[in-house]
Amino acid sequence: MKIAEIGEVSLLRGIREKFGAPSRGIIAGIGDDCAVLRPSYGNLLLTTDMMVEGVHFDRRLITPYQLGFKIVSVNVSDIYATGGRPRFLLLDVAMGSDMDKRFLEDFLDGVGDAMARYGVKLVGGDLSASRRGIVTAGTLLGYSKRPILRSGARPGDRIYVSGNLGDSACGLHLLKSIKRPVPVESGARIDRPMKWRTMKPLLARHLLPEARNPGPFSRHATAMIDVSDGLFIDLSRLCDESRVGALVCLKEIPLSPEMRKAASALGLEPYGLASSGGEDYELLFTARPEKKINACCIGEITESERIVIDIDGTEKPLTPEGYEHWH
Amino acid sequence: MKIAEIGEVSLLRGIREKFGAPSRGIIAGIGDDCAVLRPSYGNLLLTTDMMVEGVHFDRRLITPYQLGFKIVSVNVSDIYATGGRPRFLLLDVAMGSDMDKRFLEDFLDGVGDAMARYGVKLVGGDLSASRRGIVTAGTLLGYSKRPILRSGARPGDRIYVSGNLGDSACGLHLLKSIKRPVPVESGARIDRPMKWRTMKPLLARHLLPEARNPGPFSRHATAMIDVSDGLFIDLSRLCDESRVGALVCLKEIPLSPEMRKAASALGLEPYGLASSGGEDYELLFTARPEKKINACCIGEITESERIVIDIDGTEKPLTPEGYEHWH
Repeated sequence: MKIAEIGEVSLLRGIREKFGAPSRGIIAGIGDDCAVLRPSYGNLLLTTDMMVEGVHFDRRLITPYQLGFKIVSVNVSDIYATGGRPRFLLLDVAMGSDMDKRFLEDFLDGVGDAMARYGVKLVGGDLSASRRGIVTAGTLLGYSKRPILRSGARPGDRIYVSGNLGDSACGLHLLKSIKRPVPVESGARIDRPMKWRTMKPLLARHLLPEARNPGPFSRHATAMIDVSDGLFIDLSRLCDESRVGALVCLKEIPLSPEMRKAASALGLEPYGLASSGGEDYELLFTARPEKKINACCIGEITESERIVIDIDGTEKPLTPEGYEHWH
Repeated sequence: MKIAEIGEVSLLRGIREKFGAPSRGIIAGIGDDCAVLRPSYGNLLLTTDMMVEGVHFDRRLITPYQLGFKIVSVNVSDIYATGGRPRFLLLDVAMGSDMDKRFLEDFLDGVGDAMARYGVKLVGGDLSASRRGIVTAGTLLGYSKRPILRSGARPGDRIYVSGNLGDSACGLHLLKSIKRPVPVESGARIDRPMKWRTMKPLLARHLLPEARNPGPFSRHATAMIDVSDGLFIDLSRLCDESRVGALVCLKEIPLSPEMRKAASALGLEPYGLASSGGEDYELLFTARPEKKINACCIGEITESERIVIDIDGTEKPLTPEGYEHWH
């Protein structure tokens, strides 16, 4: 059944039944002009991220569940990257009238599962027709007692990443070679172009990304950002805001064995994927050198020069390679 | 110059220079993963509204300045309708790479002028490419010591509107007959199809809508909503949330003399425009009958029946006529 046959009023009623249960801190949620929320401790964190069909995703390569999961994760990642706790979500969705009801249901299942994972509640949003394609935007409100900004890095700080980089970009390359959606959330298995146990973690990383909770690091981090557009571009942003430089040792960037294997089979350069591939949603942060941090140290903050030490030991300038719109 | 030639980084830098000045309550604004805000008194209000090209607006009939002004006003209207004070805006914009730089600049001028009018600050957002057309979404955070919900109306309450209805819908009809944008913000004058002094307030109401501050009413309002989709549909929503009925007297709905005149010239029914036309952004609210309220009383809340007394004195059922997506 097409959503046009169901109508906006029924769709909103369905969303409210699915997500509108009373919850601590919510005075009024879905169904009023505004969400009315009881404030919690600390500072307020507010972030928004859009996903546009044909730009951020290709509907021929992603399931609606994955799209819903991802719009939540990308927003949570920004709250985590500021050292915060995500709480309340607003969700905007614009889609054509010929959209199947099932698509919206699966999308909302993905939204719901991601929200449950992060302890987030839906408190409002906007549902609209679109002339063509899907546009969805999430806005997330969170709290933090001690916000961690991009601007706090100082020369001498060590640079850390919270986990392997390049998996998501490698997963996207795999997906493009598979040429159809892979519903990993439903236990899908595929054995081409390589073994499922190699492909699965890479595809899952791209299709159902999980935001990293900074819990253990947030006490010591002097500056933090999530790796959404690519390590080098996101590190450059952190350096811009902190007005510092950086020295990064390429061979210290953590790579997963699956990514190494898949990159080799696909003829891709693994350190290229790790330094310029986006959407890993690992945390990139800095800390004073005397702090004991359980993460991978990939370099050091400098006064102003931005340098990468390549695998062969040669130095080259660190340039912000990564995703930019309107190429 | 096309925005693709300028690039995302330069565009964001420009937005930050235009809107990123330090301001009370903002610990970190544009340029970090999240906005970090110092909480104010009272409850938090959070709302979002999208505007989609070809659905909410026709670029052949609206100036970019008007679009920017409107995306702020429609969100402020939701905060006002909850009895709140608007404070911080997040702005999402998706547009094609062939978009002219001038369009974005004029759009942001409209956003900026509307924000200044309401005392709102831009603290973040997301800028994206789109395959086709413009999609913009605003999210607004506000505060309220005493939020006014849709659900507080009780039988016996009087029903009020804060001002004339139908002007915006009439302005849209005029605009469709003029068939091109009317830059009222730049002092434009047109003398067809009728006198400018008749058309101007109606066009301005549609093109540069102003949200109504509930200041004087908020102390006594038992329930409130803004008239965005049409009086009857928005009153039905208020009744649904309050689980009550309503008796509305059509001839008590306030109409502007300009709207009466223009509707007559266009062959439109003025009370039809006032009861089912959207986008007036007047406040619709209820109050106990003993309270003295300086607004137009249009009826009374009942136990459950929903009735309109027509101009000729006959009764008919009040049905939620108004805007619905996916017709």
